[in-house]
Amino acid sequence: MGMVFVDVGMSLDGFIAGPNAGPRNPLGDGGTCIHQWVYPLAAFRTRLGMEGGESGSDNDRLEAVFARTGAYVMGRCMFDEGEVGWPEDPPFRAPVFVLTHRPREPWVRRGGTTFTFVNEGVESALERARAEAGDRDIRISGGADAIRQCLEAGVVDELTIHLAPILLGRGVPLFERLLAERLALSIADVEGSPLVTHLTYRLAGR
Amino acid sequence: MGMVFVDVGMSLDGFIAGPNAGPRNPLGDGGTCIHQWVYPLAAFRTRLGMEGGESGSDNDRLEAVFARTGAYVMGRCMFDEGEVGWPEDPPFRAPVFVLTHRPREPWVRRGGTTFTFVNEGVESALERARAEAGDRDIRISGGADAIRQCLEAGVVDELTIHLAPILLGRGVPLFERLLAERLALSIADVEGSPLVTHLTYRLAGR
Repeated sequence: MGMVFVDVGMSLDGFIAGPNAGPRNPLGDGGTCIHQWVYPLAAFRTRLGMEGGESGSDNDRLEAVFARTGAYVMGRCMFDEGEVGWPEDPPFRAPVFVLTHRPREPWVRRGGTTFTFVNEGVESALERARAEAGDRDIRISGGADAIRQCLEAGVVDELTIHLAPILLGRGVPLFERLLAERLALSIADVEGSPLVTHLTYRLAGR
Repeated sequence: MGMVFVDVGMSLDGFIAGPNAGPRNPLGDGGTCIHQWVYPLAAFRTRLGMEGGESGSDNDRLEAVFARTGAYVMGRCMFDEGEVGWPEDPPFRAPVFVLTHRPREPWVRRGGTTFTFVNEGVESALERARAEAGDRDIRISGGADAIRQCLEAGVVDELTIHLAPILLGRGVPLFERLLAERLALSIADVEGSPLVTHLTYRLAGR
């Protein structure tokens, strides 16, 4: 059975998006800076139907994340923010289970991405994701609320943070005080790169 | 002329001390967890008059920080918190310039540490520290207010964060919203270790 993992970009001061995030501003003000390392990569460009791009260790890492992911679990806010902007062939190319209280029929997109709307909570979404993912891993794609919900539910095996050398000052924090006493992390891997630092933690007991 | 640097431990959620910090609780509730990697090291133990301790790359790093530092600039709160607890031979072994509005005669301690109280602000403290440090570097030792004040004044050349794999949930944050637009960081060095991740940033234009 695959792992459940989070793989998220964060500013040095702890934000995964800037302030005023919404469907017309999915990463919030200044939030694209967090992901500056991703945009030039060949693996990123390919997923968005563009040619060219950089190879190297950051690109290998991004390729590996795509390759290991057999299904996604996504929060409703992230879905709402992405729905208007994703292309007809969204970059997921795998089943995406959206946590929401609003019933909705599955939304089948080109290229292997189907959004399925789950109204019964995280455990149910994970169960359905596992059935689709097979031996591959399940990525909790975001946003912050969905990640926190999964971390607090104790279902996450691995947390990777791509720490950007920027300070946003305000925005959407990854961590909130509720988490503190519930999570024990151990360092699994650290990889430096000129534009970002990749930090991977194992969740205790997983 | 030496560099001005900050070298500080931080939790993954951005705190450099826990809540309720004060003279009887200098690192705040749970704050010692941030520095867990330091306590077993030989260099740390030696500075506090204890024998034994671990060698290795973390110890080499701590030795190097002590060795490069020719003078310290310290905030008044950190001084107040430390004054009651530091031994007669405090671990600094160099001149320490304390930023404070309260005039006070220099306080000479054993082992090379003299606390000098500066009432004319950061620039004045740095000038006096430079005169004492010679070719060695000046460490802004903390606390959070003093570090922020120095970062905002644009006098810091290098920022090292020892990122602990813990979540405190609340406490004393290193960064505050004021800083965001004033600082540009570039990654200078990343070193992984089992208990902590050492992140060094260069401040833009320095």
